[in-house]
Amino acid sequence: MKKVVTFGEVMLRLSTPGFARFVQTTSLNVNFGGGEANVAAALAYLGIPASHVTRFPDNDWGYAAAAAYRRYGVETQDIVYGGDRIGTYFLETGAMMRASRIIYDRTNSAFAQLDPKELDWERILADAQWFHFTGIAPAISEGAAQACRDAIAVANRMGITVSADVNSRKNLWKWGSTAAEVMTELTAGCDVIVCGKGDAEELFDITPKTQEKGFIAVCRQIQEKFPRVKKIINTKRGSLSASHNTLQGRCWNGEDLVQTMTHEMVPMVDRIGGGDAFLAGFIYGQIQGFSDQKSIDFATAASALKHSIEGDFNLASVAEIETVMSGDTSGRLSR
Amino acid sequence: MKKVVTFGEVMLRLSTPGFARFVQTTSLNVNFGGGEANVAAALAYLGIPASHVTRFPDNDWGYAAAAAYRRYGVETQDIVYGGDRIGTYFLETGAMMRASRIIYDRTNSAFAQLDPKELDWERILADAQWFHFTGIAPAISEGAAQACRDAIAVANRMGITVSADVNSRKNLWKWGSTAAEVMTELTAGCDVIVCGKGDAEELFDITPKTQEKGFIAVCRQIQEKFPRVKKIINTKRGSLSASHNTLQGRCWNGEDLVQTMTHEMVPMVDRIGGGDAFLAGFIYGQIQGFSDQKSIDFATAASALKHSIEGDFNLASVAEIETVMSGDTSGRLSR
Amino acid sequence: MKKVVTFGEVMLRLSTPGFARFVQTTSLNVNFGGGEANVAAALAYLGIPASHVTRFPDNDWGYAAAAAYRRYGVETQDIVYGGDRIGTYFLETGAMMRASRIIYDRTNSAFAQLDPKELDWERILADAQWFHFTGIAPAISEGAAQACRDAIAVANRMGITVSADVNSRKNLWKWGSTAAEVMTELTAGCDVIVCGKGDAEELFDITPKTQEKGFIAVCRQIQEKFPRVKKIINTKRGSLSASHNTLQGRCWNGEDLVQTMTHEMVPMVDRIGGGDAFLAGFIYGQIQGFSDQKSIDFATAASALKHSIEGDFNLASVAEIETVMSGDTSGRLSR
Amino acid sequence: MKKVVTFGEVMLRLSTPGFARFVQTTSLNVNFGGGEANVAAALAYLGIPASHVTRFPDNDWGYAAAAAYRRYGVETQDIVYGGDRIGTYFLETGAMMRASRIIYDRTNSAFAQLDPKELDWERILADAQWFHFTGIAPAISEGAAQACRDAIAVANRMGITVSADVNSRKNLWKWGSTAAEVMTELTAGCDVIVCGKGDAEELFDITPKTQEKGFIAVCRQIQEKFPRVKKIINTKRGSLSASHNTLQGRCWNGEDLVQTMTHEMVPMVDRIGGGDAFLAGFIYGQIQGFSDQKSIDFATAASALKHSIEGDFNLASVAEIETVMSGDTSGRLSR
Amino acid sequence: MKKVVTFGEVMLRLSTPGFARFVQTTSLNVNFGGGEANVAAALAYLGIPASHVTRFPDNDWGYAAAAAYRRYGVETQDIVYGGDRIGTYFLETGAMMRASRIIYDRTNSAFAQLDPKELDWERILADAQWFHFTGIAPAISEGAAQACRDAIAVANRMGITVSADVNSRKNLWKWGSTAAEVMTELTAGCDVIVCGKGDAEELFDITPKTQEKGFIAVCRQIQEKFPRVKKIINTKRGSLSASHNTLQGRCWNGEDLVQTMTHEMVPMVDRIGGGDAFLAGFIYGQIQGFSDQKSIDFATAASALKHSIEGDFNLASVAEIETVMSGDTSGRLSR
Amino acid sequence: MKKVVTFGEVMLRLSTPGFARFVQTTSLNVNFGGGEANVAAALAYLGIPASHVTRFPDNDWGYAAAAAYRRYGVETQDIVYGGDRIGTYFLETGAMMRASRIIYDRTNSAFAQLDPKELDWERILADAQWFHFTGIAPAISEGAAQACRDAIAVANRMGITVSADVNSRKNLWKWGSTAAEVMTELTAGCDVIVCGKGDAEELFDITPKTQEKGFIAVCRQIQEKFPRVKKIINTKRGSLSASHNTLQGRCWNGEDLVQTMTHEMVPMVDRIGGGDAFLAGFIYGQIQGFSDQKSIDFATAASALKHSIEGDFNLASVAEIETVMSGDTSGRLSR
Repeated sequence: MKKVVTFGEVMLRLSTPGFARFVQTTSLNVNFGGGEANVAAALAYLGIPASHVTRFPDNDWGYAAAAAYRRYGVETQDIVYGGDRIGTYFLETGAMMRASRIIYDRTNSAFAQLDPKELDWERILADAQWFHFTGIAPAISEGAAQACRDAIAVANRMGITVSADVNSRKNLWKWGSTAAEVMTELTAGCDVIVCGKGDAEELFDITPKTQEKGFIAVCRQIQEKFPRVKKIINTKRGSLSASHNTLQGRCWNGEDLVQTMTHEMVPMVDRIGGGDAFLAGFIYGQIQGFSDQKSIDFATAASALKHSIEGDFNLASVAEIETVMSGDTSGRLSR
Repeated sequence: MKKVVTFGEVMLRLSTPGFARFVQTTSLNVNFGGGEANVAAALAYLGIPASHVTRFPDNDWGYAAAAAYRRYGVETQDIVYGGDRIGTYFLETGAMMRASRIIYDRTNSAFAQLDPKELDWERILADAQWFHFTGIAPAISEGAAQACRDAIAVANRMGITVSADVNSRKNLWKWGSTAAEVMTELTAGCDVIVCGKGDAEELFDITPKTQEKGFIAVCRQIQEKFPRVKKIINTKRGSLSASHNTLQGRCWNGEDLVQTMTHEMVPMVDRIGGGDAFLAGFIYGQIQGFSDQKSIDFATAASALKHSIEGDFNLASVAEIETVMSGDTSGRLSR
Repeated sequence: MKKVVTFGEVMLRLSTPGFARFVQTTSLNVNFGGGEANVAAALAYLGIPASHVTRFPDNDWGYAAAAAYRRYGVETQDIVYGGDRIGTYFLETGAMMRASRIIYDRTNSAFAQLDPKELDWERILADAQWFHFTGIAPAISEGAAQACRDAIAVANRMGITVSADVNSRKNLWKWGSTAAEVMTELTAGCDVIVCGKGDAEELFDITPKTQEKGFIAVCRQIQEKFPRVKKIINTKRGSLSASHNTLQGRCWNGEDLVQTMTHEMVPMVDRIGGGDAFLAGFIYGQIQGFSDQKSIDFATAASALKHSIEGDFNLASVAEIETVMSGDTSGRLSR
Repeated sequence: MKKVVTFGEVMLRLSTPGFARFVQTTSLNVNFGGGEANVAAALAYLGIPASHVTRFPDNDWGYAAAAAYRRYGVETQDIVYGGDRIGTYFLETGAMMRASRIIYDRTNSAFAQLDPKELDWERILADAQWFHFTGIAPAISEGAAQACRDAIAVANRMGITVSADVNSRKNLWKWGSTAAEVMTELTAGCDVIVCGKGDAEELFDITPKTQEKGFIAVCRQIQEKFPRVKKIINTKRGSLSASHNTLQGRCWNGEDLVQTMTHEMVPMVDRIGGGDAFLAGFIYGQIQGFSDQKSIDFATAASALKHSIEGDFNLASVAEIETVMSGDTSGRLSR
Repeated sequence: MKKVVTFGEVMLRLSTPGFARFVQTTSLNVNFGGGEANVAAALAYLGIPASHVTRFPDNDWGYAAAAAYRRYGVETQDIVYGGDRIGTYFLETGAMMRASRIIYDRTNSAFAQLDPKELDWERILADAQWFHFTGIAPAISEGAAQACRDAIAVANRMGITVSADVNSRKNLWKWGSTAAEVMTELTAGCDVIVCGKGDAEELFDITPKTQEKGFIAVCRQIQEKFPRVKKIINTKRGSLSASHNTLQGRCWNGEDLVQTMTHEMVPMVDRIGGGDAFLAGFIYGQIQGFSDQKSIDFATAASALKHSIEGDFNLASVAEIETVMSGDTSGRLSR
Repeated sequence: MKKVVTFGEVMLRLSTPGFARFVQTTSLNVNFGGGEANVAAALAYLGIPASHVTRFPDNDWGYAAAAAYRRYGVETQDIVYGGDRIGTYFLETGAMMRASRIIYDRTNSAFAQLDPKELDWERILADAQWFHFTGIAPAISEGAAQACRDAIAVANRMGITVSADVNSRKNLWKWGSTAAEVMTELTAGCDVIVCGKGDAEELFDITPKTQEKGFIAVCRQIQEKFPRVKKIINTKRGSLSASHNTLQGRCWNGEDLVQTMTHEMVPMVDRIGGGDAFLAGFIYGQIQGFSDQKSIDFATAASALKHSIEGDFNLASVAEIETVMSGDTSGRLSR
């Protein structure tokens, strides 16, 4: 099977144990995570060949990060090494009405210092069927943005499906261009995107016209603007507390809006990577030839399950996801 | 007070910490557990003399297993030693819609290799008032089944009450006979059994006749088939998620069906051993001369409490159980 | 800003990890806590200068206890050293219907052996605006009671606001006088008290007269008896289970009863110190010049948040408390 | 085989993990220990029936302490319950030139409050061949001293061997009598004692006369004073650092002084209980009918091994001890 | 670069934390290890392409084991899945004169049940330059022995270097043939072997003739018997204690005996896998074209370093090994 | 007593537990450390008032860092807040011949971005008797170097003793000036310096003239160049392995070279901060009016003890240091 290639920054994730706060903790758990790489990890765990492309410092944290992905089957041979440091994020897990908190420390990372010429996309994508990135990668630096541009161009030329989680995070964009400028250009090369109403407004200046129903209207306008985009997906998250969320997925395929059941998620174990698990689930479904309904059901069940798993990666099996997507959320003991 | 004697396999229980999955864990917590031995541990903790009979390998895991039960007051002097290994089970605790999982690794255990002649039941039961086993023990091997047969014969002859959790697990039976054959024979020697509708159908080919109310009808048929059986108990578990179950107990004593309140169990800490805690609670009640209502209330409250306690053993005191059976499930801090 | 001075015993808090029971635990987490000192810690964390006065043994546990408070900004220079041991309490955290349990081991503590002459309140309170104690401090010993009496006298003379959590715990009073005698005397010097109906009845022999609404009636009678008391506050806690409580705060200011929203607290992480967090929040509000409504809202939100935080101290920021008091209990991730 | 009965206080042992200091630790490991009870645990582990007699508070720490001994096979049925608290000691493990430190918190313990009438020594010693205590037990309280006196009287009458580790710790004696008075009386009833030159001088006012070789001279004087004492044993410990000690054992049997090889102990894991392991080894040897040379070799090898084992108990097998006493200290891997 | 292929069983390694004994431990650390696979892991860590071939159960432990090797760069695509269980070994780390202990529980493992037809060696070795196995693999079962035979035949035909750690462990051979029979046959196909005097005697009935110097004499006889064997290597280990060993390597290449410095190893962190690290180091040297002296120096320094690293794998870099082989064992801090 | 003021960067220290390597660790221990701040912590622990001046980010890591020093009594009121991040260093503890490793990640830290105008040294030093910095602080940035220059000028004017650990680390100097330029200027304002031969050569171009004895010759030349410098101290460290070092201190006071005994340090627990403990010990001695011999003995004993203590801070008491400096390195248990 041809592989899925993902591109983006991977960070050292240092999280407090249990519910400890930053100011009181005496240790931090070590994991690694990055939106695009998490997609690769989830896909590899589901049995889909996946390779992640990024840039790591040439030190033990770079090797440990690559090892963390390789452990779950992600190919790491196209990672390049160099630069000063690995980006880091610190995570404090909330409970009840106390929100989880993240402190980012990612400036001047090896990835931010990437020279796009380090990556030979013709070679990297030679055996690929799908290329995935997010709106975070081009936000990091001009070089990273150019690498996205290069990869999309090659992928489009080679007939490889391109997906993006457009993920508007205005405050990340500090290198000169705006999110709107760059993401508008990059989205034009995409076949599948994750995009909500907020993203559409901030990035593409699209707001629903008054007489039409919200999300569908937005989707139609996106497709007018980006004719290549065939499917637009996202999730609605209900935040009852830091320990209790709900999740529903939806997919617009140009004709129909298909939606999923609403999953109750309580008590959540780890909510980081839930969106990446969703995307990985959808890519899995599309590659397997599932219908859009089945794809979005699979994606949303996968995402719900992720919230029960420690770390950024969705270590959920196909069988487990299928049980949940079938509506069996009883959690009965498997002996 | 005369003691309760239990017989069955004890396994090394290796569980992942917190909610870690098998594939990601870097350590395993060490406990020991076995359906019948858990009953003995719970009874000893409640102050009832209890002795467990089993076979352990003559190595450190065998000694550690005996020590684990002795710690809570279970007598271990009738355990025999020999054979190759201790049976092991690996436990991964689920959360939300992600089910807990167990991987058994129990073939060729010291217990499976038991020669029934190693056990002198006349001596072992000399000071006993109650003998308890489950449908798992005879499933393990022909020798273990014969040991059950021997023990029941001696107990019946000596006027010792016999109880069994009939516990149909078809896929465990690999040594030649079927669960139905052997359990039909063994149940004939029992005074009290835990048996649900599913068990009755699988083991005894008993299904409720259409015109009668379900469980009572099944019980009546069981008693026709097994005149010695005086009381049939079990629990109805509602599985809302891996973190949230409900539990209700019931007892048929040949005349009345007595039922308990429904206990909400959320968030569950450890659900292994819940059924054993139920049985231990019922035996405790019967030995103390409680009414069937009070016995089943005590048993079900005990079982509910077990779900809040780490490990296989129900380390709940009489006072705690009585608080819960009185309907006070407020969990107010005891200073 | 002038400081808040608190006075009372601090204990070594040894708690089982996770949900382990005392009889099964192999380690204990080390924290320190005391009702009054917890108020100082919470205030210092909120940026209010606070100093705690107590007596510690002149050994490593005394130094470690002082260090634990100094870490979060509490001044410790007026702590005196001497005596035999630090009082200790052991905590086992409950779950579901299983209550948390505390074993106290505090007799003959350095604090209990306090000679009131060791404390020069004129000097200690020289730069203070508020003095706080609880009904537990005078219960410990005659010396501690006298120290409270001395401190209140000085505070009253110097125009410093005095608050008390009257906290009736009859079984603590063993040194000769009764809670009612001593607390009646001490409360006469207070401006703000935490007092519920049960406390009022046990300590002050005040019960609501039949025709008036409960709490207000009690408050009016308290104010008749203690004309100095301007504000009476407390919380109503709903105990659904050891894991799930609700909390509502109220404040009687002599004219109006102001109440807060009811906070859902599930799953609770650590409920010790919830009342102290409430008081610290109220003192904070009063010092900041908040209205009584805003003060009690702040206090109750602070208390609710405390239940999500490990240890006795409320390590919650002003911003976090304001988010919750504004009604946003969604726990949305702060990136 | 008749059993060994030991009598003395058991304390909750709370030790910092690794090499953490008290002032910095965030957790404490839970163990239990007491000089005499440790002897019982080591003997039970070696297969000798042993029962420990003490007094515990009637709370979870009392039950947990009993459970800790029962786990390794010590009989606990003659323990009595009552009183306020369990004595506690805090342990900080040293390294290099930094000494380990102990903070005792044992006053007013359940054991100190023992009423000697609670113990029926006729019954307790009915099936015993050996009674053991140390100089610490009578130091704790007048009641404990009387209990020792009672037990020795009964043992002497019944022909049971009595041993004592005379263990001079002057600063423990606070209840009225002096160590010298009481220990002189109690030692008169002993058959075997652990006693060094320092102990002999402090307790019995015995110093070597100038012309004779040190230890033998002291032993002869002890035997003149206490004709019942047949064997005097002890160890010479060389303290190179907190991590590196040496150990040599010796036994005077009235005729010969037999000595052992010197064991190198580096890096030591846990030195608490080394002396108790020595005594248990010697009692084991005497009960097995070993020669004095073999007994003292076994005892000293057992003690050396103890220093490699975490906790107060010597969980070393007969085979392991025999390997070391044979001079094989290579620590070669046993597969 | 062509890869190194290794073949043999991988076990789940469960080790007690710190110096805890089996009977007292409450958790076990999870690692994976196997003599041949450890060689692959060490080589991959040094940058040599390596692939391990084995058989795992088709369950989470099988996946986790593969993941553990993949993490450090070992290719796992030729592992086959099936069978009942993963072999397990339990490890207790010794200290001082207390030896480390291993309890094996490996019967009926997925590897033991290997059908040699499952492995297509022509394909597996297509891109290989070196094949490595040990005397343990053929000991496990007839199928495993046949797989070794098949692999060696293919490797010999394809001109691939074959190495073996002959590793005599008589008590492992239970399937019918003897170690001597099978290892004599398999060694005939080897180019490089690890073999000591004891192995030579037990497996090949070779003892040094009296007039010649020991090891060289044995090597000459081995080469007479096995003309294909070009190099014979091994280590001399001095066992001062479980914490302190010494290590010296030597290599006979048919002409010269080259030896290394003696490495002091104290305090050892983890001695499992030391021999595998030695072999990996030697293979690395030979592949890099090092002289035999440099190869054996590198191998022995690598092995010494392994004793400072937790787990079965030698996570030591080329630079670290070169520092040690240069004689710099000062352990100076690298900033 | 007037206080000691220290100035320099504090970093978040993240160290692997036990002997784990970076690539394998799953958690990191959290501590804080910085050469100058460690001196303040050690002094405060010895009872000398000490205040540390630095710049932290205005986030939880900044607050946690300040809290870590406040915990042990260091004043933190002159710390300024602002900037992007806290500098971080990762520590992997070596063993045997495997060296410890540090990965620095300190560029663009809040400290590096310090504007010297943020610090009002007149006010900060108003109540000081001693000012201390190291050669690392001015290496970080031009602003930090200017702050050192400012502080020294004020201190010299106010008659405050100035000490520096000149600590040549060429590769840290990246902001424009060289270590030699800046440190030559700053050292001119110092009264006491830590300086070895290597430092003298690299920073001050001073090498011993041929006919004179090494260190004394260097010291004389330093004093010629820097007439203000009265005392030059340092340590000689012998590196036998990562686990075993030796340490000897020496002090040149313009007339005599006084030296200490050589301390054996094995097994070392944590060698980070050993030099800072040495300096703190010397400052303590000088402030207490010790002779130079006694000061350097105290300093070196303090430093040796630090190697037995986890974390950057020397949590050793005066009594413990005095025991070691008296030559008692037996590590005998303090009960």
